[in-house]
Amino acid sequence: MVNINDVFDNINEYFSPKVVGEVNDVYIKVAKIKGDKIPWHNHKNEDEMFYVIEGELLFEDAIDGNFTMRKGDMHIVKRGVDHRVSAMQECKIMLVENKKTAHTGDVTSDITKSIDQQLK
Amino acid sequence: MVNINDVFDNINEYFSPKVVGEVNDVYIKVAKIKGDKIPWHNHKNEDEMFYVIEGELLFEDAIDGNFTMRKGDMHIVKRGVDHRVSAMQECKIMLVENKKTAHTGDVTSDITKSIDQQLK
Repeated sequence: MVNINDVFDNINEYFSPKVVGEVNDVYIKVAKIKGDKIPWHNHKNEDEMFYVIEGELLFEDAIDGNFTMRKGDMHIVKRGVDHRVSAMQECKIMLVENKKTAHTGDVTSDITKSIDQQLK
Repeated sequence: MVNINDVFDNINEYFSPKVVGEVNDVYIKVAKIKGDKIPWHNHKNEDEMFYVIEGELLFEDAIDGNFTMRKGDMHIVKRGVDHRVSAMQECKIMLVENKKTAHTGDVTSDITKSIDQQLK
């Protein structure tokens, strides 16, 4: 058993997803978001779930448009759909992604983390 | 986008998981638990994630033993491991399960729901 809040207490870098568990082919991850450093990207073959635990997440989705996600809001980006998230203030989120999913898709930016970095 | 709390407001049956989204081969579900009607069971080929959103979940796990999960706690039962959950007071949980997972495994009890019922 792991407490998600304890995990957040040990995360001191934004845009750096941490794997907290695996369920068959997917990873459960958590991340802190603050700022707008995540580039527009998509995941060609994988859907991605976002769930807000604390704070406000600004979501830009090529199909569903722009919206603000708050505590308890869940949004799933389907495979192939361009998207970007940002936050004015610190926001804590949970992610459910296929193990093969690169968190910034095919786009590499200075915040991009490898799966090995996300497993540490 | 869906707000999990709005979904909970519309659930008026315990032990009745509701699918709130799909991410490739897994379903994201929510459920309200109160009482001890869930039988011991396992899922032969599928892991299962439990995440407590509100309340206290009593977990019995053939490998990890008995423990109480509280808000923010996450536990993953690996495939094949017998387990059972119950709650003295109403508890709200999120589940991540493979689409093929039967929520009470091969055990059928009077609370067992089909996937079709969980999709309604």
